[in-house]
This record gives sequence, structure tokens and C-alpha cells, in this order.
Amino acid sequence: MNEIIYKPIGIIHTPYTDKNSTPIQGCFAPDSTGYIELFPEYAPGLQNIEEFSHLFLIYHFHQAGCAQLIAKPFLDKEKKGIFAIRYFTRPNPIGLSVVKLLRVNGNILDIGEVDMLDGTPLLDIKPYVSKFDIRDCVTQGWYSRATERAKYENQ
Amino acid sequence: MNEIIYKPIGIIHTPYTDKNSTPIQGCFAPDSTGYIELFPEYAPGLQNIEEFSHLFLIYHFHQAGCAQLIAKPFLDKEKKGIFAIRYFTRPNPIGLSVVKLLRVNGNILDIGEVDMLDGTPLLDIKPYVSKFDIRDCVTQGWYSRATERAKYENQ
Repeated sequence: MNEIIYKPIGIIHTPYTDKNSTPIQGCFAPDSTGYIELFPEYAPGLQNIEEFSHLFLIYHFHQAGCAQLIAKPFLDKEKKGIFAIRYFTRPNPIGLSVVKLLRVNGNILDIGEVDMLDGTPLLDIKPYVSKFDIRDCVTQGWYSRATERAKYENQ
Repeated sequence: MNEIIYKPIGIIHTPYTDKNSTPIQGCFAPDSTGYIELFPEYAPGLQNIEEFSHLFLIYHFHQAGCAQLIAKPFLDKEKKGIFAIRYFTRPNPIGLSVVKLLRVNGNILDIGEVDMLDGTPLLDIKPYVSKFDIRDCVTQGWYSRATERAKYENQ
């Protein structure tokens, strides 16, 4: 099938320049902050965005390296299929994060709960809408087991 | 900046062949079902996925047409910036949906709560993890106002 070509709409700036010291997820780094530099030609698309407290960012894992279909997640000891984990060595290295929108100033968006590397190319911004995005009763296999085990080991 | 090139990892099959009769979001179509045909070379990446009840699908809006930075969302009467709505005419026409995972059979995943067109090229699958993906206290500007207004008008 044909290739799909996207162009970055901006750059995500964060304090993290090294994969090993970047938060695993934004929820584990509530105080981390950074900013989006949206390329000025896209700034008209920001109208009304300041009304939202949280955003989805879709971005390119620019330092992902080669794809691996089986990989070890950060939060467990055993390898899993890449589509059952959030690790970055994906066939299409696309990242997805919920961030907190702190401030909009022209084409600059200050954000919190960031978990991406500095210089990450941004592909899309979507408003986080609880009705669309929250599912209350979810089963989450290995992740739940790993979390339970971690609680037990830390007692 | 350089172009980013992705390749579809599969195709999403749904009952919807026309944009106008496709659900706005999966949450509004709890009984809708479809399936993912993952290209066989990616099937090893599905290991452990059956442990999750919900997945994020990231896909290409293949019938989006030209990008518009200002557009009218389905659920309101006035136009907004494209990054404050979920409409498909985005600079990079990337779709994001939470779906229910019903069954895995080799490289075929039966899914529920689908809201995409039949034949949609799939770019990534990620497990839905409540700790990573749920934010409890969110502000959602125009969406909340439109929802409130709809309730009032329907009384």
C-alpha cells in the first residue's frame, strides 16, 4: 500500500534530552513543563483551544530507531507485542500523550505533564473530551498485574 | 522541515461507506462493530493484546480532502480552530479513536464502538491504560456549552 506523508506542524520543547531520563508517561511527571512551538502558518487553527484544560498530542518518535514487533515495556520485566505496549519502537513510530494546557500565547502553547523528548516533531493537536476519550470499565492485562506486583514489592 | 513517511499496518473494515452516516464518535455508537485486518507481517506485534478491553487506534483520514484551519465541528453551529475540534480536515489528517476489543483471531481483530469509514488505513494500535489516558478534572469549553444547550433544546 502507498506511503502516507505528513509534515510536522511544530516542535515540542521539553527539559528531556535523553531517552533514559524522560518520564515514562505524563501521569508520572505531574510537575514537568514544556512548550509547543506551532509553526506560525498553523496558528489560526488554535482558535478556541484555550477553552480546554487537556490536549492529546500526536507526534513522531524521532529517536525511536529500528522497529521491533516484540519489546520490553518500561513497567514490566517480560517482552510483549508492540501493539500491547506503549514503547516507541513501533512500525510507525507515532507517540500519543495527554498533556495539560497551561497557557496560549500566539503560536506558543505552554504545557504540563510532558513526557516527550526535546525537539519532538508534532503532527497533530486534539482537544481532550471526556465523553469521547474516557472509558470507565477497562481491562488492562499485564499492566494491572505489573502495577499490583510493584505495590506488593514496595510494601 | 522534512516529511515524515508512514506505511499502513492494516485496514479498518466497518459498516460505514459514507461520511455523513458514520458515527461522530464511538461513544455515540456503542453497538457498532467492525474489524481490523492487520497485515500478516505485523501479527507478531499482537502478542498480549487480548488482555486489553480497549485500544487506541491511530489512522489516516483517507477521505478528508483539503486541510482547513477553521472548520465547523459536528456538535456545534459555529466554526472553531481545527486543533480545538476533532473534525477530519486537519493539516495532517490523523484520526484517533478508542475502540472496544472483542476478539483476536490471528491477524484479525474484531472491534466495537467503531466510528471510522470502511477501508481506513491503520497506522498504529496502542493499549488503552486508564492511568495513562484518563484525566478526571477536565475543562472542555465549547463542547460542554454545546452539550448543555442540546439538553435544554431537547427538553
